[in-house]
Amino acid sequence: MAGTDSSRPNAGANTPLSGGAPAIVLVQPQLGENIGMAARAMLNCGLADLRLVKPRDGWPNEDAVAASADAELVIENTRVYQTTCDAIADLELVFATTARPRDMTKRVVTPSQATGELRQFISGGGKAGVLFGRESKGLVNDDVSLADAVLSVPLNPSFSSLNLAQAVYTVAYEWMRFADETPDSEISYPKETRPGSKLELTHLFEHLERELDDSGFLRIPEKRPTMVRNLRNMFGRAGLTEQEIRTLRGVITALVGKRKKPKNSDADR
Amino acid sequence: MAGTDSSRPNAGANTPLSGGAPAIVLVQPQLGENIGMAARAMLNCGLADLRLVKPRDGWPNEDAVAASADAELVIENTRVYQTTCDAIADLELVFATTARPRDMTKRVVTPSQATGELRQFISGGGKAGVLFGRESKGLVNDDVSLADAVLSVPLNPSFSSLNLAQAVYTVAYEWMRFADETPDSEISYPKETRPGSKLELTHLFEHLERELDDSGFLRIPEKRPTMVRNLRNMFGRAGLTEQEIRTLRGVITALVGKRKKPKNSDADR
Repeated sequence: MAGTDSSRPNAGANTPLSGGAPAIVLVQPQLGENIGMAARAMLNCGLADLRLVKPRDGWPNEDAVAASADAELVIENTRVYQTTCDAIADLELVFATTARPRDMTKRVVTPSQATGELRQFISGGGKAGVLFGRESKGLVNDDVSLADAVLSVPLNPSFSSLNLAQAVYTVAYEWMRFADETPDSEISYPKETRPGSKLELTHLFEHLERELDDSGFLRIPEKRPTMVRNLRNMFGRAGLTEQEIRTLRGVITALVGKRKKPKNSDADR
Repeated sequence: MAGTDSSRPNAGANTPLSGGAPAIVLVQPQLGENIGMAARAMLNCGLADLRLVKPRDGWPNEDAVAASADAELVIENTRVYQTTCDAIADLELVFATTARPRDMTKRVVTPSQATGELRQFISGGGKAGVLFGRESKGLVNDDVSLADAVLSVPLNPSFSSLNLAQAVYTVAYEWMRFADETPDSEISYPKETRPGSKLELTHLFEHLERELDDSGFLRIPEKRPTMVRNLRNMFGRAGLTEQEIRTLRGVITALVGKRKKPKNSDADR
């Protein structure tokens, strides 16, 4: 549930049915729960081709189903292979997700670079995938040597052990992120309202300033222009809707009413 | 383990001790396991300030410790609050991680936009944080209304339910990613080797072409220049190291030896 957005029409670009996407290959995964969480993370980001090489606890796996949060599209189509070579046989571009190799000469790329290359390759009709190793020790060098390049997530060097499902999510998230067209920042309005017009805002300002003049709040003439500007800036910054402007005008009236009522009984006015 | 990189010296920029970072506030989290996984994801990316509002199963929590994979720096310093207001009292900028609100007027930002704003705000000395709701239903609107803006992860609209720890990791990963200076793509070499020089490469080419001339492989004169160029391109693309060039020269010698030996007994040569 947390922090998701299913309401954007353009998010449809991330559905698994909208075209090619990389295969996710888990080599000898140990915990079904991690496989399930990886499947869920994949589908969250529009990936659906999950392949397992010798899963320790066999397949299908109940823990995986439970942890997948109904990512059936992924779980039901998961394929199992006996070797990494078999699992990637039909692919033409493969990244191995692992730490920077210390004993091999290999190109190392960031997750964003890898997904950019995957997007380009797949949009050109190519078939591609990403390898992930087992939880306890990652990919073995023999598997890494099958890949075109190493995909390495740059993390806190003093605590860099990433959960398998988080590693899969890193790639899936970058894959989604690369093509996402959501505006970086925008105001979301409820359907029944709209941004307030400048005229409505001016009426609010005038209402407020009239009542503040009346109440004596703006009584010092040399300070009045600055205070008015500050108040207008304050409310202007809030980006008020038409509904909110009406609410604030009601607030002013209510506050004034409270003040005026007892005063009405005075000789003061 | 999977896909991490602890070897880069500049990754030190992501350690929690190197300066301010946003607080992660989990409002009424239900599963200790998710809290632990969130703590691990935070520390992976250099975040350490975890705050819990009314965790369902109390605190400390054994499941959280187990799932944190020894992220003690985070777990041991986790603070518990009774209300969201209390948890964010000292903060000046707060994002609420949730779906795009349908019934509130609120600024909505992408994870990368939010972390950019957090970086800028915190580097200016500000204190900031990010709210996450409970697993089952996310943040309630009363909590969202306390935040400056909504942080929404654009996901597959037909499967947008993101695990809590993955949601926390999204923000932590973007926080790390924003400041990371890892080159997008580079060749990693074992310590004891270096890229081959062009002279070493030329010697390899000449060795190969001499033996191929000798064997008759390049016997058609009009095809020879193209084949030589293709071979040179092929090996050039591999970005060979000095060690690999020596290995390949050994390979050529070995293959030639196999062919020459039986022929030596012929009258052919």
